[in-house]
Amino acid sequence: MVHSSKILDCTIRDGGLVNNWDFSVEFVQDLYNGLSEAGVEYMEIGYKNSARLLNAKEPNPWRFLDDNFLKEIIPEKKFTKLSALVDIGRVDPKDILPREQSVLDMIRVACYVREVDKGLELVQMFHDLGYETSINIMALSSVPEHQLIEAMEMVKESPVDVVYIVDSFGSLDPAGIEHQVKKFKSLLPNKQLGIHTHNNMQLAFANTLMAYQNGVTFLDSSVYGMGRAAGNCNTELLVSYIQKSSYEMRPVLGIIEKHMVEMRQKWEWGYIIPYMISGVLNEHPRVAMAYRNSDERDQFVDFYDKVTTPEATLATASK
Amino acid sequence: MVHSSKILDCTIRDGGLVNNWDFSVEFVQDLYNGLSEAGVEYMEIGYKNSARLLNAKEPNPWRFLDDNFLKEIIPEKKFTKLSALVDIGRVDPKDILPREQSVLDMIRVACYVREVDKGLELVQMFHDLGYETSINIMALSSVPEHQLIEAMEMVKESPVDVVYIVDSFGSLDPAGIEHQVKKFKSLLPNKQLGIHTHNNMQLAFANTLMAYQNGVTFLDSSVYGMGRAAGNCNTELLVSYIQKSSYEMRPVLGIIEKHMVEMRQKWEWGYIIPYMISGVLNEHPRVAMAYRNSDERDQFVDFYDKVTTPEATLATASK
Repeated sequence: MVHSSKILDCTIRDGGLVNNWDFSVEFVQDLYNGLSEAGVEYMEIGYKNSARLLNAKEPNPWRFLDDNFLKEIIPEKKFTKLSALVDIGRVDPKDILPREQSVLDMIRVACYVREVDKGLELVQMFHDLGYETSINIMALSSVPEHQLIEAMEMVKESPVDVVYIVDSFGSLDPAGIEHQVKKFKSLLPNKQLGIHTHNNMQLAFANTLMAYQNGVTFLDSSVYGMGRAAGNCNTELLVSYIQKSSYEMRPVLGIIEKHMVEMRQKWEWGYIIPYMISGVLNEHPRVAMAYRNSDERDQFVDFYDKVTTPEATLATASK
Repeated sequence: MVHSSKILDCTIRDGGLVNNWDFSVEFVQDLYNGLSEAGVEYMEIGYKNSARLLNAKEPNPWRFLDDNFLKEIIPEKKFTKLSALVDIGRVDPKDILPREQSVLDMIRVACYVREVDKGLELVQMFHDLGYETSINIMALSSVPEHQLIEAMEMVKESPVDVVYIVDSFGSLDPAGIEHQVKKFKSLLPNKQLGIHTHNNMQLAFANTLMAYQNGVTFLDSSVYGMGRAAGNCNTELLVSYIQKSSYEMRPVLGIIEKHMVEMRQKWEWGYIIPYMISGVLNEHPRVAMAYRNSDERDQFVDFYDKVTTPEATLATASK
């Protein structure tokens, strides 16, 4: 199958949720150059949230992207376009330059379905500044149908370019993805769709393929799968799979070899049993992430017992 | 979906290809008890090949299964049935007792499509001795269609109970699996089908689900995915996914916690870049396995260059 799909690599943005964005400038530059050589269309270089609004005490250049800093480290754009993600209530409109003055090409807005109106206000602003835009509806696997339908009525009327299906909990299977894609297509016949998956049940790549085969055009991925908890669909798999003369796997292998094997030894992401369990249970991985940071990290049976006993879940979550 | 599928755990048999069957009796017993508690229908406890025919110098109880030894370590059968795999030309008919004198319930025959006639002779013999039988057609992703059709003409007439689709190279995707299952069903309307996957492209579970959803009844898997090179579909994922009141994930988590986290530190299997590359290229993982045992094990770009240059491939393979 050959159609106009695009890969959006979110190694820095979603991977930063693993290591608190502890990425060297050299790594980010190597990633940008490698993705450009590989023919990957977009790279999400971080969050464009406001340090002030988040009361951040420490500098964190990939979490609070600054246009001057970006121009310094990427003085010359290559093939790959750059995107940034923002969260509702955490972005300061004053921080956003018009697109022609920025290195960024696209701004994506993450939101839960209940705050889609606020998300669309941001989309409108970024659109008016000249950016490509997306709205990424998180935690889709636990959204009631009627809420989704209402939200999509608003989305349909907005200027947003891409609407993302986000399997935040890594709990959907290919059949579930196909169902969601068909629903989104019927609700939003005038919009491009995107897919963002998590690998809790080792289905991130298969789910992304299913979306692609059903006409979804924006495919999120991360090199070596680096992303929160179980991580994302692997960029190297997408690049090797999609029959498109412009993609090259070799530069992505170079990034993995030079940086990511070592990073994976230092930081943890991927198919790990507590994340698998939270995916199966259709729950946010935060309880599992806390468990992996505790002394009981490998006590899988105990973890399973805790999260399948409601009172105990609350106790662990509030630790 | 609820239908009469069965899980066949091949941790010992396929996992033994990772560690030369260096499994303790305690581990095999814990695995058998755990799988029985989990409701897994079959456990493949090793190969029933002949040490004599293979000129083996060292004892290797899980590679050369012996009925007396099996009776000793599993004095009482529980829920899970036991199976063994044999290879063409490596099994001595004299080693096979009638089923009523053996702990084994099923004997499976692995063969390439060109030797299916020999495979079916073995099947006939095991069938006559009272065993359940399967024939496992290896390396299916590189079998020409006309060869498969000829082979299936013979298989159809044999008493074999289950015919397995084996993605030896981990190179099929769910669409490819669906295509194969439909072909097998039309060629073998009178046989049950089985699926055995490898995880080179992180598609083992998704491929197994696709087969299951298309009516394949025997689903191979390994606990924590332990199997040759990239490993197999994970038993814990199948057990958690298939809606069947008899399956329990908890005992499988117990096996992983007690044994497999440590085993994975000692031995290597799973999603590893050279195995991903051999899957993408539809090649046997042996070259990649040799590379992982060399000093260049993490030089992925070099490996990619070698295996995509025909002369170099031969040089590496013959090392």
